Amino acid sequence: MPLDADIAARLKRDPAGLVCAVVQQHDTREVLMVAWMNDDALHETLTTGRAVYWSRSRQELWRKGDTSGNVQRVVRASLDCDGDALLLEVDQRGPACHTGTRTCFEAGGDLGAVNGLAEATP
Amino acid sequence: MPLDADIAARLKRDPAGLVCAVVQQHDTREVLMVAWMNDDALHETLTTGRAVYWSRSRQELWRKGDTSGNVQRVVRASLDCDGDALLLEVDQRGPACHTGTRTCFEAGGDLGAVNGLAEATP
Repeated sequence: MPLDADIAARLKRDPAGLVCAVVQQHDTREVLMVAWMNDDALHETLTTGRAVYWSRSRQELWRKGDTSGNVQRVVRASLDCDGDALLLEVDQRGPACHTGTRTCFEAGGDLGAVNGLAEATP
Repeated sequence: MPLDADIAARLKRDPAGLVCAVVQQHDTREVLMVAWMNDDALHETLTTGRAVYWSRSRQELWRKGDTSGNVQRVVRASLDCDGDALLLEVDQRGPACHTGTRTCFEAGGDLGAVNGLAEATP
């Protein structure tokens, strides 16, 4: 069964047919990871309650947690204003990152940006 | 002045030389928007305390708020595990979205996903 036609018409896909998905833990609001979806992945995500992505490295659907057990249950999915990004609010079981950290941004780490809030004029 | 060489070496850019940036309000933890950075945009973001992106539509650096006044002060910038996504924690003045809503995902709206948490077995 294909993706709902109204939703499909609103997507602005990249040249590889993908839309970026930001994945957020629904209660703590941590940003867990960024992944990519094609139409099939989005359709499965919206209709099964489990987050499914397109693996760019393996070039196949990636039902997150099938191998690791670290499943993401979907709470809400939203599209952005211009149709090229999704926000997926989930309940993440275990770590989201393949390195074993809770989020992929902990794994990569802080880049030491100048704090613009501290320096801002009132 | 170019981007710090150690950081530049860790980035995994797309064919257009860009990395995806997830932008989050630092205190409420709302996901505000997704934007794109090239090396110059990231360098300016890390060193000036203001969020700067690469506008894919205009093909130029986009110092967010220069036109609208809706500046983003940077609180923290993190890279993800595989170097192809950034998390930018900011203080957003006014709406983040060009449509006037606080976040770009309010503008696009809820896609009506099945709630996988409600249906999950205990």
